[in-house]
Amino acid sequence: MNITFKLDVLKPHSPDNELIGRTLMNTEGVTYVQIKTDEIDQKTTSIFLTVKGTEDVTLDSIKEILESMNCALHSVDEVIIEK
Amino acid sequence: MNITFKLDVLKPHSPDNELIGRTLMNTEGVTYVQIKTDEIDQKTTSIFLTVKGTEDVTLDSIKEILESMNCALHSVDEVIIEK
Amino acid sequence: MNITFKLDVLKPHSPDNELIGRTLMNTEGVTYVQIKTDEIDQKTTSIFLTVKGTEDVTLDSIKEILESMNCALHSVDEVIIEK
Amino acid sequence: MNITFKLDVLKPHSPDNELIGRTLMNTEGVTYVQIKTDEIDQKTTSIFLTVKGTEDVTLDSIKEILESMNCALHSVDEVIIEK
Amino acid sequence: MNITFKLDVLKPHSPDNELIGRTLMNTEGVTYVQIKTDEIDQKTTSIFLTVKGTEDVTLDSIKEILESMNCALHSVDEVIIEK
Amino acid sequence: MNITFKLDVLKPHSPDNELIGRTLMNTEGVTYVQIKTDEIDQKTTSIFLTVKGTEDVTLDSIKEILESMNCALHSVDEVIIEK
Amino acid sequence: MNITFKLDVLKPHSPDNELIGRTLMNTEGVTYVQIKTDEIDQKTTSIFLTVKGTEDVTLDSIKEILESMNCALHSVDEVIIEK
Repeated sequence: MNITFKLDVLKPHSPDNELIGRTLMNTEGVTYVQIKTDEIDQKTTSIFLTVKGTEDVTLDSIKEILESMNCALHSVDEVIIEK
Repeated sequence: MNITFKLDVLKPHSPDNELIGRTLMNTEGVTYVQIKTDEIDQKTTSIFLTVKGTEDVTLDSIKEILESMNCALHSVDEVIIEK
Repeated sequence: MNITFKLDVLKPHSPDNELIGRTLMNTEGVTYVQIKTDEIDQKTTSIFLTVKGTEDVTLDSIKEILESMNCALHSVDEVIIEK
Repeated sequence: MNITFKLDVLKPHSPDNELIGRTLMNTEGVTYVQIKTDEIDQKTTSIFLTVKGTEDVTLDSIKEILESMNCALHSVDEVIIEK
Repeated sequence: MNITFKLDVLKPHSPDNELIGRTLMNTEGVTYVQIKTDEIDQKTTSIFLTVKGTEDVTLDSIKEILESMNCALHSVDEVIIEK
Repeated sequence: MNITFKLDVLKPHSPDNELIGRTLMNTEGVTYVQIKTDEIDQKTTSIFLTVKGTEDVTLDSIKEILESMNCALHSVDEVIIEK
Repeated sequence: MNITFKLDVLKPHSPDNELIGRTLMNTEGVTYVQIKTDEIDQKTTSIFLTVKGTEDVTLDSIKEILESMNCALHSVDEVIIEK
């Protein structure tokens, strides 16, 4: 079973997209991360974040990693689960 | 024989999309669940819900699960059945 | 030889899309049914109905099934026949 | 060698699209017929007609069949011939 | 090596698209001909003509065939050559 | 390693697109040439030129060939290199 | 594990797109480079740069190469990492 999350995330300028991507990829079960910059404001950047992985990947685990990097989950646009 | 339902659903903010998705995936015969957030209002969120599975998956069984999570089936946009 | 019909159908709110789909799938030769809701009015719903099957599937047989469920064939948008 | 004709045809309300399609499919060499309704007027319907087949299928033979059903070839939008 | 020509051609109403297509297909090396009607005027019709074939197919040979049927090459929209 | 160049080129009416294409295809390493007419002016024609080949194909070698035919490289729209 | 970077880069007119592409391709781990010209100003050109490679390819290593050619990384539009 695989799960995909498409998320809106608000982040400070640092960490950059690459660090967020590599950190998420190091999480157990994650197989794909895509980060697209949406809007750059003075202090923050909003990004579209897609994370795919096995069913062990939970929104809670993603949120925890994001928060440890000072990023805030703004909304969950899409969840796909498939056998 | 496989069946696909594309549904409009109105839900309270909790349960979140992930919980709805995982709960539906645990239903006998369901092989795919997609949840896209449509509109977020103050107390409710309307979502587009796609459920695919074997012919045993019925709209009634989906509706029952949704209602057990305080979600209301608003309309059935599409039904696909294929051999 | 396979045949596909794309139809405009006017139906009362009941039977619902699922029942129409399952009933059509139980017809000899039918291999695929898709029902998309077009417009919901106070007493009726107009739907786009696609039916695929072997050459034995005729518009007359589909119309008969639809009428037995109080649905009226409004127009035939497309017919595809292929060897 | 295969040939495809995409045609504009004007037809009376009867024969219906299905009868035109099945009649054309019974012609030697025809392997595919698609009929899309374009515009329905009071006495006539204009349709987009696609006919694919072997090189033996000629526009003359299609025109003859159409005329035998009181349909008039209005224009030839596209011809594709491929080895 | 294969070559594709996409051409604008001006033709009298006769010869029709089918005859132009079949004549071009009878040319050494031609493997595909597509003719789309662009605009029909009182005395002439402008068509989009695509001809694919081996490297032996030249624009000169196509032009010669077109002119022998009273068709005039108006412009060369695209040339593709691939190994 | 393969390289693709997408170029804007300004050419006199002669040489025609076919001659430019065949000349470029005769260059060592070139495997694909596409020429699309962009704008035809009184004395010149601007074309979109795509050239694909092995890594030996350089912009300098393409420019040299174009200039030997009185064509001027106007701009480099895209370069793709892939292993 | 593969990584893709989609970047906005500001460069002087020289080096040209080809040199930037070939230089990046010579970097350890890089398997694909695409450079599309976005806007040409009097002294600078802004380009869209896509670099794909193994996980060893870092944004820092790309930035260093770009800066050695007097190009400035303007923004990171997208990062994709996949197993």
